[in-house]
Amino acid sequence: MVMHLKAYLDFNKGEHKAKSHTKYNPNGRIPTLVDETGFTLWESGVIITYLVEKDDTKHTISAASAEEKYQQLQWLFLQAAWFKLFHAEKIPSAIERYQNEILRVLGVLESELSKRSYLVGDKATVADPSFIPWNNFAFAVLLLEDTDVAAKFEQEARDNSSFSDLKLHNAKLADAALAKEAGAHSRLRSARRAK
Amino acid sequence: MVMHLKAYLDFNKGEHKAKSHTKYNPNGRIPTLVDETGFTLWESGVIITYLVEKDDTKHTISAASAEEKYQQLQWLFLQAAWFKLFHAEKIPSAIERYQNEILRVLGVLESELSKRSYLVGDKATVADPSFIPWNNFAFAVLLLEDTDVAAKFEQEARDNSSFSDLKLHNAKLADAALAKEAGAHSRLRSARRAK
Repeated sequence: MVMHLKAYLDFNKGEHKAKSHTKYNPNGRIPTLVDETGFTLWESGVIITYLVEKDDTKHTISAASAEEKYQQLQWLFLQAAWFKLFHAEKIPSAIERYQNEILRVLGVLESELSKRSYLVGDKATVADPSFIPWNNFAFAVLLLEDTDVAAKFEQEARDNSSFSDLKLHNAKLADAALAKEAGAHSRLRSARRAK
Repeated sequence: MVMHLKAYLDFNKGEHKAKSHTKYNPNGRIPTLVDETGFTLWESGVIITYLVEKDDTKHTISAASAEEKYQQLQWLFLQAAWFKLFHAEKIPSAIERYQNEILRVLGVLESELSKRSYLVGDKATVADPSFIPWNNFAFAVLLLEDTDVAAKFEQEARDNSSFSDLKLHNAKLADAALAKEAGAHSRLRSARRAK
């Protein structure tokens, strides 16, 4: 298992841009992983890939076959590239452009998830939850910015159940995470009772 | 070796967004790889990773060790995320923001290449040339857009040799590619003479 400690960086003090961090990650962004051997990685999609290769040897939450590993990586790449879009300028034309691109990518996810339950293979892998924080942020914040694109999106959402498969997918993953957590709590309680 | 045919898509006719393409790549962008078995991948960084894993078994242009493979992937992720920046809005504040981010990432590359010759390990891998078209585009086009950031960049470039290690790295790779091509031509000529 990859052992790790957590280090909190105070962005207000610019600690992510300080030498103590950039000596590990020249890009000065988070996350950064330094494992117990001193091996260092940055870019969340690569860190996730590294961690599941090392720790998820039974492939509970990651692709098992070579082909599916490439597909898993492909979605992590899309997510990484898409993430960059969230640093929007507060200029109406720029916000509209971002909203249009967000709707386009949500449409890609919706289209895939209308054909099957998960992005890769027939189970949830790390590729699936990688999108959820940004999907939520898009639905809850970005698509509500007051523009013509947002108005059109809201109208469509009222007219039909927009992104229903995507929302079902996200809800299912949240349920699975909750179920897993509940299972862990239940096992913990049993273990305590057994003492 | 991964066998392939090339398919040209007419963007003006929207062929990249047509069903004949999106059935392979739901994201409707290029590149898309369909290999001889029908296995399909998109996102250039993943396609590159797949191709070198399959074809570059002697690791002539790719990382050989597990650790260096992750590092190679890390730079391909950075390149993919950075690429998105090149779709700039023609709004001065947006252009300046892109120029600042371009200068920041060029600075990251410069800093790394001032410490060693190549991004991963001690030889050129696919991670290195992945940046070159965009570096060139940045230097030749984007950083010349008429803004305060560009003016500052030009002033600094005159005052000292900005990005000298990065430019040396790019030139070296271009030279290596030319040398390789020259070598191939020379071998081809020898082979023809030998007939």
